[in-house]
Amino acid sequence: MVNKQLLQPESIVVIGGSNDIKKPGGNMLRNILAGGFDGGLTVVNPKEERVQGIKSYSTVEEIPNADLAILAIAAKYCPATIKTLAEEKNTKAFIIISAGFGEGDEQGKKWEDEIRETVNSVNGCLIGPNCIGVITEKYKGVFTAPVPPFNPKGCDLISGSGATAVFIMEAGMALGVTFAYVFSTGNAAQTTVEDILEYMDLNFDPEKDPLIKLLYLETVSNPKKLLKHASSLIKKGAKIAAIKAGSTEEGSRAATSHTGAIASSDMTVRALFHKAGIVYCSSREQLLSVAAIFNYRKLKGKNIAIITHAGGSAVMLADQLSKGGLKVPEISGPDAEKLKSFLYPGSSIANPIDFLATGTAEQLGIIIDYCEHKFDNIDAMVVVFGSAGLFNVENVYNVLSVKLEICNKPIFPVLPSVVNAQNEIQSFLRKGHIHFPDEVVLGKALAQVFNTPAPQSQEISLPKIDSEKIRKVIDSASDGYLSPSQTVEILDAAGIPRVHEIVESSKKNLLKALENISFPVVMKVVGPLHKSDAQGVILNIANQEEAGETFDSLMKIKEAKAVMVQPQLAGLELFVGVMKEPGFNHTILCGLGGIFIEVLQDVSAGLSPISKNEATEMVQSLRGYKLIQGARGQKGANEAIFIEIIQRLSALVEAAPEIVEMDINPLIGTQESIIAVDARIKVQKT
Amino acid sequence: MVNKQLLQPESIVVIGGSNDIKKPGGNMLRNILAGGFDGGLTVVNPKEERVQGIKSYSTVEEIPNADLAILAIAAKYCPATIKTLAEEKNTKAFIIISAGFGEGDEQGKKWEDEIRETVNSVNGCLIGPNCIGVITEKYKGVFTAPVPPFNPKGCDLISGSGATAVFIMEAGMALGVTFAYVFSTGNAAQTTVEDILEYMDLNFDPEKDPLIKLLYLETVSNPKKLLKHASSLIKKGAKIAAIKAGSTEEGSRAATSHTGAIASSDMTVRALFHKAGIVYCSSREQLLSVAAIFNYRKLKGKNIAIITHAGGSAVMLADQLSKGGLKVPEISGPDAEKLKSFLYPGSSIANPIDFLATGTAEQLGIIIDYCEHKFDNIDAMVVVFGSAGLFNVENVYNVLSVKLEICNKPIFPVLPSVVNAQNEIQSFLRKGHIHFPDEVVLGKALAQVFNTPAPQSQEISLPKIDSEKIRKVIDSASDGYLSPSQTVEILDAAGIPRVHEIVESSKKNLLKALENISFPVVMKVVGPLHKSDAQGVILNIANQEEAGETFDSLMKIKEAKAVMVQPQLAGLELFVGVMKEPGFNHTILCGLGGIFIEVLQDVSAGLSPISKNEATEMVQSLRGYKLIQGARGQKGANEAIFIEIIQRLSALVEAAPEIVEMDINPLIGTQESIIAVDARIKVQKT
Repeated sequence: MVNKQLLQPESIVVIGGSNDIKKPGGNMLRNILAGGFDGGLTVVNPKEERVQGIKSYSTVEEIPNADLAILAIAAKYCPATIKTLAEEKNTKAFIIISAGFGEGDEQGKKWEDEIRETVNSVNGCLIGPNCIGVITEKYKGVFTAPVPPFNPKGCDLISGSGATAVFIMEAGMALGVTFAYVFSTGNAAQTTVEDILEYMDLNFDPEKDPLIKLLYLETVSNPKKLLKHASSLIKKGAKIAAIKAGSTEEGSRAATSHTGAIASSDMTVRALFHKAGIVYCSSREQLLSVAAIFNYRKLKGKNIAIITHAGGSAVMLADQLSKGGLKVPEISGPDAEKLKSFLYPGSSIANPIDFLATGTAEQLGIIIDYCEHKFDNIDAMVVVFGSAGLFNVENVYNVLSVKLEICNKPIFPVLPSVVNAQNEIQSFLRKGHIHFPDEVVLGKALAQVFNTPAPQSQEISLPKIDSEKIRKVIDSASDGYLSPSQTVEILDAAGIPRVHEIVESSKKNLLKALENISFPVVMKVVGPLHKSDAQGVILNIANQEEAGETFDSLMKIKEAKAVMVQPQLAGLELFVGVMKEPGFNHTILCGLGGIFIEVLQDVSAGLSPISKNEATEMVQSLRGYKLIQGARGQKGANEAIFIEIIQRLSALVEAAPEIVEMDINPLIGTQESIIAVDARIKVQKT
Repeated sequence: MVNKQLLQPESIVVIGGSNDIKKPGGNMLRNILAGGFDGGLTVVNPKEERVQGIKSYSTVEEIPNADLAILAIAAKYCPATIKTLAEEKNTKAFIIISAGFGEGDEQGKKWEDEIRETVNSVNGCLIGPNCIGVITEKYKGVFTAPVPPFNPKGCDLISGSGATAVFIMEAGMALGVTFAYVFSTGNAAQTTVEDILEYMDLNFDPEKDPLIKLLYLETVSNPKKLLKHASSLIKKGAKIAAIKAGSTEEGSRAATSHTGAIASSDMTVRALFHKAGIVYCSSREQLLSVAAIFNYRKLKGKNIAIITHAGGSAVMLADQLSKGGLKVPEISGPDAEKLKSFLYPGSSIANPIDFLATGTAEQLGIIIDYCEHKFDNIDAMVVVFGSAGLFNVENVYNVLSVKLEICNKPIFPVLPSVVNAQNEIQSFLRKGHIHFPDEVVLGKALAQVFNTPAPQSQEISLPKIDSEKIRKVIDSASDGYLSPSQTVEILDAAGIPRVHEIVESSKKNLLKALENISFPVVMKVVGPLHKSDAQGVILNIANQEEAGETFDSLMKIKEAKAVMVQPQLAGLELFVGVMKEPGFNHTILCGLGGIFIEVLQDVSAGLSPISKNEATEMVQSLRGYKLIQGARGQKGANEAIFIEIIQRLSALVEAAPEIVEMDINPLIGTQESIIAVDARIKVQKT
């Protein structure tokens, strides 16, 4: 687990430090030296007396105590070395960059286990094995390039893949993205991405700590920890974006072949990110675009002004923003006319604000001032300004730079002239800004950020249900599907309205029972396995008389034991369900029934416990939501009741976490009621 | 219209050529000079005797004859100057880079009209106004930077926006994309993007001409020309990708404010691109990724091997390929095991083929050889190879470079280390290759290319319909909706099966007519406007007797004049329709009816004439297609008949192009038949 010795070691030993900087142990030492580490630094290398000018020892037994040990030696030597360090050298933090452990074979896994045990026994921290290392404010403990300068206002990067961390830093630096802490967890034999996030959360200082956290995950090893600490950090002011790779079957196979990751279902991961307020990304490019957006002021509304001297980019951006649910509202009125008077003839202020190829830096400044102060229907600006190569645009970027500092509304700079304005862009980046080379890539990421909700409250009030009764049923049940009577008990205890049935084998009793029921009803034979095949389901029974006749004919069917009567419900078919990924809270699903589930896969998912807001969003984000509202002359279904049922289902699985799978399909919804017609529940206790 | 004088002028005059290279007229001249134009070159500039070393004349009257004139003077001087050039200097090609024409005000439009008339009168070619110019093999006629070296194997770029052309070239050059001909059409007062494509098609030499064409359009001014010549070029071996910006309402407003473009509906544009075989792109980045893919061998199948030394990128790429409908098939068997023996322990060959961070150039070569020669289930390779910064990877990229030359299967190189391997990447690009910095961006573009079909045949055989009868109805109709009887005549003449109705006011005649009809039927009162409100629609009439009783009761309704009888059809609701964007062929739509149209907008579109293949693809690409096949115990609808109806609708609008809007909704489909129940047709003759 992360500790002070990992983050701020007073002393470091590099085991396997080398003079050959093409070797990991050589380059690691070089990076630490070049990074200006000011504590005690030693090396273990039996072949040298000094390595890169640093005192080298033949064996680990000889070295002075060290807070942090970085191991760049063959896997087989690591267990014993770490034992010595832990037991004799008071070492509390370990980074193993060597491969050949759990990602390889059984022997490697054993070494990992042994090492973890040793490190745990001294309450130490283990990063890796099979990782690129760690960068903190105090030292540059990676064996790879590039080593980004530590910027306390930059992005923290926590990655399950070392090479991906390298590629993310490389692509980020080109855009002006800066970095603070970097952790590569490798095989995560002890410390996982979630553990690091937990440490950051528990020790969070919003004044000093980096606010932006970028994660690359191939597995979510502790979903609850991720949810808890990501939510908590975001509530304290942090912003988190993450890639969870392996979201498809083919991706998962790739992940499995890579670090032995077990892929969780993408739907559940997305539900977790959504609940935590983590922005879900699918590529390095998207992650870095989101990181760049995080660096600017927060987008508080969906109305964007596009300010440009180049029409084409503005059109493509407007298309993309609109596709992502953002707006490019028309700007008009006296202030707009006044603004127009400052621009060259032919300029357009309707939004996009196009101030022409000849537009000047001072005009840009005026436009931004109007958007900031005069146009209340504008929440943010995107400035697209390149260069045709005729003159230097540094004065334009200087105006932009100042406005970025002083404006309250966010401004996102798209600087497409990566060739013509290369120098001006570099000078802009040196002022600490970040640029977006492609307007459409920005537009997509902007929508992604805007459409990610704030973290859900940790205290969600769920409807009251009869937990005692539920526990009684579950505790007495065996693994597998519950019986029909158990299922009915569970639904009743959870307060989920269900269809009421009468089962009778005597005609007299049946007719008596039917006195209090409203027609039409459905009658089904009880006994034969395949009721429909046996012509044992009769619809549209309108009255007592027909019911009596139908009873007689049904009881003549072979194997008939009794007759079941259900009210014949008409309304909109709905669906709710539960799935359970190992380690995650239950995923609650909702949708319209029938073809919507089976053909269109139109399903919303949320992670239990589900707040009323979340349930509402789940229902309203269905593609077929209009049908719930009532469309095409049909009356729809009661949305409030549907939302309550989703929450009751959530309360149910919180009371009975042994439920691993559940379907209520269909529920029949009208404006007055929603009634479960069929349900199945699977429990698994071990 | 494009002519030889535009492409290969023997002499050029730059009107407004200047010594100040910060001015368009100055930089234009500099680019022409630097580009080594070897013909006669003169300048008109009343203030100078020589401009950049070139002889300058005070007035256009004094200059020697010139094939091509490039105008960089104020708009108001252009009409007279062009008149003189056309009439006295035998000039046949004109490029106007000046703004202040049709994009500005009415006066500017008039100047444009006047100039076009002059140019047309001498059968000349006019590019612009309000453009950056033209680059051909012979001269560099743009006033902007960068000026990419002419590469006859590079991409032609034809852009409706000058700045966008600049930004596309800048972004492309960074990836290694090279360019050949560049045309910026600006206001396109005479020559449009389509005209240039037409010229390229009519003069196409597949041995010498550039094969890749990139288009940026804000308007499709001549859809039929675009379709014809894009299809034709692609059939001859060219590859075309295009952005049509302004696909959303907000984007269209942006386009309108930009160059006076009228946005065509995105659905119709996509249908046109699809029919032509043009790859539809939404961003500069996507256009350039597709251009880069075009530069490599053609992807002939969907099975991709991912070869990497960095797991994370492979996982993200596998996810993306799978989302786009491509495959990362598992590799196994004796050859796979043999391959594994050449790699370091811990390598994975299952696909992704992960040969570890320590993987060597020679191992990469062996892996590629196996994919090329041994693994029949592999159609293409993506090689992801970056650098951790420890050693130079030039030897790896050299192997890659050679394999790119000799392998028959396409190989796409993802080189993510834009910092660590910057020099090696540059050296790789100098060998004429293109790289992909982000694996997911490549994955998306690869799917986009793979999922774009080949151009449709120009000769599409449509079902035979009774065109004579259709013309008779249309010719006698007035603008607006056709009457019910006209509509019925049209459907019958087009051979689209429709529900047959009997309308009778005499009970006796009705019952006689019913002798040949199968029950159940629906009976409706004829006369009252709102049949349903008047209880004038009766369903489920089972026999002659009930029909007689129903006739009596319906005729008692106020205003009843007669009774209409229709067979009561049961089956799957389907929909077909027609819409017409000005200038485009008719767009034919199909879908499932009811909620699929109204709530889910699940519609496929194709551009008439629709081939059988296209109609089949339209039906099969519906989200609800499974319902047509039969799902959830329902029997579905006859797909072959549905396809035929789509083709008959296409034949109908080809015979009656005056149809501007048409709906058949619903059609009721069963496995035996598909019958139109309701239809409306709108015609517009002017």
